[in-house]
Amino acid sequence: MKNYPYPMLQRPNFIWERHTDQTSDIKVHEWIGTARESVPDFSEYDVTILGAPLSKSSISTSAASENPDAMREAWKSFGTYNLDEDIDLSQLKAIDLGNVKQHVTDIAYSQQKTREAMAAMRSHHPHTLPITMGGDHSITAELVKGWKEAHPEETIGILQLDTHFDLRSLDELGPANGTPIRNLIESGTVEGKHVHNIGLQGFFNAKELKDYADEVGLNYTTLKQARKKGIDVVIHEALTQLDKQVDTIYLTVDMDVLDIIHGPATPAAAPGGMYSAELFEAVQIAGEHSRVKAMDIVCLDPRKDVGQITVKNAVYTMLSFLVGYCKKR
Amino acid sequence: MKNYPYPMLQRPNFIWERHTDQTSDIKVHEWIGTARESVPDFSEYDVTILGAPLSKSSISTSAASENPDAMREAWKSFGTYNLDEDIDLSQLKAIDLGNVKQHVTDIAYSQQKTREAMAAMRSHHPHTLPITMGGDHSITAELVKGWKEAHPEETIGILQLDTHFDLRSLDELGPANGTPIRNLIESGTVEGKHVHNIGLQGFFNAKELKDYADEVGLNYTTLKQARKKGIDVVIHEALTQLDKQVDTIYLTVDMDVLDIIHGPATPAAAPGGMYSAELFEAVQIAGEHSRVKAMDIVCLDPRKDVGQITVKNAVYTMLSFLVGYCKKR
Amino acid sequence: MKNYPYPMLQRPNFIWERHTDQTSDIKVHEWIGTARESVPDFSEYDVTILGAPLSKSSISTSAASENPDAMREAWKSFGTYNLDEDIDLSQLKAIDLGNVKQHVTDIAYSQQKTREAMAAMRSHHPHTLPITMGGDHSITAELVKGWKEAHPEETIGILQLDTHFDLRSLDELGPANGTPIRNLIESGTVEGKHVHNIGLQGFFNAKELKDYADEVGLNYTTLKQARKKGIDVVIHEALTQLDKQVDTIYLTVDMDVLDIIHGPATPAAAPGGMYSAELFEAVQIAGEHSRVKAMDIVCLDPRKDVGQITVKNAVYTMLSFLVGYCKKR
Amino acid sequence: MKNYPYPMLQRPNFIWERHTDQTSDIKVHEWIGTARESVPDFSEYDVTILGAPLSKSSISTSAASENPDAMREAWKSFGTYNLDEDIDLSQLKAIDLGNVKQHVTDIAYSQQKTREAMAAMRSHHPHTLPITMGGDHSITAELVKGWKEAHPEETIGILQLDTHFDLRSLDELGPANGTPIRNLIESGTVEGKHVHNIGLQGFFNAKELKDYADEVGLNYTTLKQARKKGIDVVIHEALTQLDKQVDTIYLTVDMDVLDIIHGPATPAAAPGGMYSAELFEAVQIAGEHSRVKAMDIVCLDPRKDVGQITVKNAVYTMLSFLVGYCKKR
Amino acid sequence: MKNYPYPMLQRPNFIWERHTDQTSDIKVHEWIGTARESVPDFSEYDVTILGAPLSKSSISTSAASENPDAMREAWKSFGTYNLDEDIDLSQLKAIDLGNVKQHVTDIAYSQQKTREAMAAMRSHHPHTLPITMGGDHSITAELVKGWKEAHPEETIGILQLDTHFDLRSLDELGPANGTPIRNLIESGTVEGKHVHNIGLQGFFNAKELKDYADEVGLNYTTLKQARKKGIDVVIHEALTQLDKQVDTIYLTVDMDVLDIIHGPATPAAAPGGMYSAELFEAVQIAGEHSRVKAMDIVCLDPRKDVGQITVKNAVYTMLSFLVGYCKKR
Amino acid sequence: MKNYPYPMLQRPNFIWERHTDQTSDIKVHEWIGTARESVPDFSEYDVTILGAPLSKSSISTSAASENPDAMREAWKSFGTYNLDEDIDLSQLKAIDLGNVKQHVTDIAYSQQKTREAMAAMRSHHPHTLPITMGGDHSITAELVKGWKEAHPEETIGILQLDTHFDLRSLDELGPANGTPIRNLIESGTVEGKHVHNIGLQGFFNAKELKDYADEVGLNYTTLKQARKKGIDVVIHEALTQLDKQVDTIYLTVDMDVLDIIHGPATPAAAPGGMYSAELFEAVQIAGEHSRVKAMDIVCLDPRKDVGQITVKNAVYTMLSFLVGYCKKR
Repeated sequence: MKNYPYPMLQRPNFIWERHTDQTSDIKVHEWIGTARESVPDFSEYDVTILGAPLSKSSISTSAASENPDAMREAWKSFGTYNLDEDIDLSQLKAIDLGNVKQHVTDIAYSQQKTREAMAAMRSHHPHTLPITMGGDHSITAELVKGWKEAHPEETIGILQLDTHFDLRSLDELGPANGTPIRNLIESGTVEGKHVHNIGLQGFFNAKELKDYADEVGLNYTTLKQARKKGIDVVIHEALTQLDKQVDTIYLTVDMDVLDIIHGPATPAAAPGGMYSAELFEAVQIAGEHSRVKAMDIVCLDPRKDVGQITVKNAVYTMLSFLVGYCKKR
Repeated sequence: MKNYPYPMLQRPNFIWERHTDQTSDIKVHEWIGTARESVPDFSEYDVTILGAPLSKSSISTSAASENPDAMREAWKSFGTYNLDEDIDLSQLKAIDLGNVKQHVTDIAYSQQKTREAMAAMRSHHPHTLPITMGGDHSITAELVKGWKEAHPEETIGILQLDTHFDLRSLDELGPANGTPIRNLIESGTVEGKHVHNIGLQGFFNAKELKDYADEVGLNYTTLKQARKKGIDVVIHEALTQLDKQVDTIYLTVDMDVLDIIHGPATPAAAPGGMYSAELFEAVQIAGEHSRVKAMDIVCLDPRKDVGQITVKNAVYTMLSFLVGYCKKR
Repeated sequence: MKNYPYPMLQRPNFIWERHTDQTSDIKVHEWIGTARESVPDFSEYDVTILGAPLSKSSISTSAASENPDAMREAWKSFGTYNLDEDIDLSQLKAIDLGNVKQHVTDIAYSQQKTREAMAAMRSHHPHTLPITMGGDHSITAELVKGWKEAHPEETIGILQLDTHFDLRSLDELGPANGTPIRNLIESGTVEGKHVHNIGLQGFFNAKELKDYADEVGLNYTTLKQARKKGIDVVIHEALTQLDKQVDTIYLTVDMDVLDIIHGPATPAAAPGGMYSAELFEAVQIAGEHSRVKAMDIVCLDPRKDVGQITVKNAVYTMLSFLVGYCKKR
Repeated sequence: MKNYPYPMLQRPNFIWERHTDQTSDIKVHEWIGTARESVPDFSEYDVTILGAPLSKSSISTSAASENPDAMREAWKSFGTYNLDEDIDLSQLKAIDLGNVKQHVTDIAYSQQKTREAMAAMRSHHPHTLPITMGGDHSITAELVKGWKEAHPEETIGILQLDTHFDLRSLDELGPANGTPIRNLIESGTVEGKHVHNIGLQGFFNAKELKDYADEVGLNYTTLKQARKKGIDVVIHEALTQLDKQVDTIYLTVDMDVLDIIHGPATPAAAPGGMYSAELFEAVQIAGEHSRVKAMDIVCLDPRKDVGQITVKNAVYTMLSFLVGYCKKR
Repeated sequence: MKNYPYPMLQRPNFIWERHTDQTSDIKVHEWIGTARESVPDFSEYDVTILGAPLSKSSISTSAASENPDAMREAWKSFGTYNLDEDIDLSQLKAIDLGNVKQHVTDIAYSQQKTREAMAAMRSHHPHTLPITMGGDHSITAELVKGWKEAHPEETIGILQLDTHFDLRSLDELGPANGTPIRNLIESGTVEGKHVHNIGLQGFFNAKELKDYADEVGLNYTTLKQARKKGIDVVIHEALTQLDKQVDTIYLTVDMDVLDIIHGPATPAAAPGGMYSAELFEAVQIAGEHSRVKAMDIVCLDPRKDVGQITVKNAVYTMLSFLVGYCKKR
Repeated sequence: MKNYPYPMLQRPNFIWERHTDQTSDIKVHEWIGTARESVPDFSEYDVTILGAPLSKSSISTSAASENPDAMREAWKSFGTYNLDEDIDLSQLKAIDLGNVKQHVTDIAYSQQKTREAMAAMRSHHPHTLPITMGGDHSITAELVKGWKEAHPEETIGILQLDTHFDLRSLDELGPANGTPIRNLIESGTVEGKHVHNIGLQGFFNAKELKDYADEVGLNYTTLKQARKKGIDVVIHEALTQLDKQVDTIYLTVDMDVLDIIHGPATPAAAPGGMYSAELFEAVQIAGEHSRVKAMDIVCLDPRKDVGQITVKNAVYTMLSFLVGYCKKR
């Protein structure tokens, strides 16, 4: 047992490990309860699950703050064994750390705590794979900055699956869900040429954003282009290119990359998007790559969901990534 | 006119034949009313529709008991003429027998009446194609046992379109919707090698169930495997193999084989599943095969439906099967 | 610490005490975790909360099995301090025991475990007030029988707030949600004259049931009659009468006693019923009476709820009863 | 048996009598089926139920056309015995005649058939109480005109429970749901002074309509005024006054008279309206009066309903009227 | 400024031009307000948007009358720049003319005003591309007739994307949403051989309608046939053939051509239909063709929508058509 | 015409006056359009309507930011004439100023603009009655502070209709929706003894908040107490007492004061609350009082609404207040 190294996390309501059996049951971890001040040795864990329930930074009203708990609930209807790949995720020791502390009226505070959570996690347990359930896309800027704080020597690349560039002006919006990639570029955390955005489509990005992307050398592939080449091919190409350029690849999945039929519960849900089978394949390939060391899923507002379609797709996406991660091992 | 041979059926609320014209109107059959004690000679019918409204045997709460009436209602928005195949289903004489009697607190009673209904139907009208609208998947065990009671000399095979094996332990669950195939195997009604399950996917089957399937020689093809080969090819292969081994092939469609976008109204609705166009093609091919002599559609809880998507897909599935049946004639 | 005396309960997912502060936060109890096999000394508790998640015994399909967890979730939006009465419920030590074990296909098993849970609770911790969250109304028959098993010498009376008599025939339905009071009368557990039903109304009871009620001397007051006299007056009269006749008064609240505007989430939701303010007053008065020693809330299907109206009314009802209980102390 | 006198009715899908037992079951009448061309002697019936499924004449889009079937469906959850009054409606012989024929694009045709249906009913079976399930309020003008055609010698009065005057200009709207009372006055069918409107409230009537009402001597009582006097008193006064002036009193209930919490499913649903208990009392009193010889319920769009609240209130209203009718006998 | 040439239009609530910037903001046009009697010179506009909010002519109840405003609202979440094609729609000067005047009870009046609106638009501003947001499919007959009135010398062809033939009998239904194509053929406005219907499928057209189509030489391609050839190929073939035969091709999109997962909000929503990506491609190709000079989108009832899926697909369809239109320029 | 004095307001999308006729139509004001830089002389207006769409300061996620537009939309279904009081609101000249500018990630900025809006309005047009549509309850602190800035010499009292004290700690939450009254007291803007809170109830206020209220001399009446005395009496008493103590009474209505059946769309919706008829009476009485000079309606999240019940109640509340205001004139 060690002392609790995460003062920026809320007292966790739901701290659990995933069972290894098929019952999808949840084994409540022993450090809920009297021993709450100390934690087990994290070095024994392969994966941490973190909730970053911030959505006050969304352009339109979003309850993405409720997504971490919604995903935890939906997760119960999934098992750990993947029949197609004959892989059982129960081989991974995973722990849910609960959620980052939030402030009711101070958005900057909540973002700082998110950044600190990633930095602390990387400092204390550098061999654990962190998966973050957003929250809106503004958290990605914080999480990558937190990583950079812990590993200032590393060059970081981003693989972004998104309908949008997320390159809108910080002057206009501040650190909102429309600006994280620009935030990372302008702050010098990530170079434009180390960002690969796949899935852009339709009428949802202004011409100016494309011009900015071209200016900073950002790589992007529209969904139509990706389908022509094969989405698997495009993902492999992006990873291969980044492999030569960066130390760590951060995978960020904005759930609005999905067509509205698969993802009705995103604030910007729109037709013309990716099918969930395409997304599952893309993240599984990413999970197999040795430089992909962190992942987040953002912009899912469960209050807008229809029959849990989007939340279940988010869990399936997270688990598909872990299937890839297991294949790599 | 003959005496009513089905004491295990409720007094039918909706006993009707399908019209042959395009108005989707319903011709109320004359034996509703004073003459309710006698029925027309069933030997003149090609198809019977039966409701088996049992869902108390579901693992999670399900109103699949309401599915037969929901399908009857949705059916009204379908005609009989299929433009693609230039086939008019009105060439078939079909009759809806109403629903199997149910007991409020005695699940075994309801299952016995389901079994008796199939046995009676096979005894009195052996040349009629029975289509059963479930109810949860536990009814499949009863219906196949009922068939076997009427035709003890026949070898029966099963073509199962499902996301799940349905091979969970009877000791744990009893005759529930997670156990029908194991129930049939362990009771000696069907051999494991005569079961073909197509459509399994994702994180919804425990490793133990796969091991059991392998042990009893059950045939299964995951959705990914099926798509690689072609779903039509896989269905044809399964039918060809069964054709040599069994007398009768029973087709069971668990609606949760569909992706959650096509089937939100199943208790286990999940992403990653079959598209409805794939399902329609699969059942039409099955309908064309001379040994496929019965069909059921199960695990559809209409209370969970969104815009009638799932119920309309169920009706479309049933009619596509009948299109295949007509092509065979 | 003592050994765990409740083998008939599921491994509890949510075992917690209510906090005494206003944050509505939940203090996870220490015996979740490694120490799950032993429990604290229950004699220190004032109140136990038990979930009896059985609704397969409902006449119509019901997900009342999901009500205990729905009430737990909705409870989080309530504090403990009641401003009107200047009473803080945090003076009570309350513990949630989790849910009674259920069987998927054996309704009798689930009912037996419910009965055993009450009997065990009364045997091990006779000074604790048990509150049960159903489940459908069939559980009341089991809980009262369980009480009787633990205290065979006691005479039990029932105060029932309900739109229905629940006196339907056991021969027809078995131990269903339409039969619990008849079940208790016919089994000799409770005498008809010791039952007071208040709230009956409308077109929802057959003439035969009234005739049966008259025959066994059951006391009933329709909602219209109760409103003419004053609901508080009628409740007081019933309690006063029972006070002279029985040792223990069991309070059972069928949520369908409420008008459909306050209780849309009951299987039999109907217009013409009680207003929630009337119900809160009634149960608070009951809570103040020294012979009222147990309470249940039944027939709430949270899947039918609209904006959590019914579930929040159920929690408010439970807390109002506890306010009365505190006033008595 | 007689020949079928109602060519203006659709082939009835659901022709049934109400059972006298408490099962709420429906006894399908024998003249569904081969004998559809002849009907039993209607003189033996006390009550006819007619559906007038016209809502194309609504100012805003309305699916009140679907109300007759929605009420039939909701009716199944009601019994016949009223405990408060100790009256069993099964003493009445009631028959559902099905729906009036409708034209897809010719509103005038549909209205004419509605008028003809009432006229035919009054001619062939003058001793039967007709209850009509609308449809929008325009049908009231047709039904009263149909009555007048059959009984040209009678003076007709109207008791209207409504949030609106329904006195808007025919020049502007034609025979729409905003004009029926003006339609009846301007056509000379009913005199303004023989109309009593009770329940008007809020911001839902223009000043001009009040001025018109005053001009033609129409009697009206706002809901606030009615509550001050007692709704029962106001209803009795209106009936007493009409009793001296007219031969027949026609009761029309616009469901939007209810507060939006009781009637969310009306196109003009609004706060500030009548409570359902008030409405039930009002119509029961009306049913007891010997000159009240017909009733309709209009402007209920079941697609807007929430948890069947409005439809169940409509059925409860109809049955409360019949309870009054039985008390009169 | 010119005098207002459109007396058949309602006083427009929302008259606006689309901005050219990415903010999706709306520039309110200056002629709202005091100057409402005059309009700017329309010859400067490339595109007019017209709402034809008639749905009383639908076979089943439909609120397609609310679709124009629903599309205007959903449009706000779209920008003007299309990344895939690198085309900015802001190069087009587009104006929304508001809606055609409607009558509450006179369907023929509303249809006449629709016809007049198209005729006036063609007379006053013949170089502007008119896009009409229905309303139900009956408006297509009026709009094409209005075009013919303005250009009696032109031969008109129709490219119809639809699940249905819309060839039902005028004698039975009048000018309803099931009859527009037959209406145009029987009135001599369009020849059967100049109609190309692509997308028909399933069980939704009676055999008689196919026979009528064959009789008048109407061209049709089922969805299955179209997918085998390639939907782009089929569209190109239809346009090429019409190019030789007619002066003007009118594109009509019945939203029920989409599979129910993409278009839950159509009265006839059904499985088995077109995917939205297929529809977007089809209309973009049509937009590129020089003879395609008008377009409508019909039969979308926004009250049935789920998460705005259908309405957003309708806007995407309209914009995809305009992308094609820009490519042509 | 004058120059535009409100730089803190967004370019208004919907600037209109209410018509004086019953059509509920909207007369678009002439200064939309080219003349947008100047405004008419506000001194001619009696009432301004302002939207303050801030809800990022809510404790739980809230889309109360969308309430102003939701109320504008629902307002269209109300006329101006009140039949009960024979008052036509069209005698008032009212203008909607649109919404206060908001920042995506800077809550303090949005609150400052709200404060400035009220201050500017009071400076430029001191004789106009401002009505503000929130937004969450944090805006009340800003609006009252803005009033104080414009009239520093005035003593301000508050009449609060609310289920909560809104006295939570600023240290914990900042200027959130749980703190506005404490904010006003601690900032010295309003004295505790000049606050009257009516409507508190249930389990929704911690004991500490009551203690704080007592400490600062805040006046409060629980709903039960108010009902015993008569809500009209309690309101009159509060106004009479404030009349002697303050210059201006500010009326703030938190919609969660309503019972959940009338107000499902508030983040804290709960049973046990006020009925809408009680609220309408209370605000009408307040409107009649000469010192009541401003009003707001807050904490209505229209995304949670059911059948527009809450939004229509909010509009009815606003109009009832204006009826009182007209009676005073």
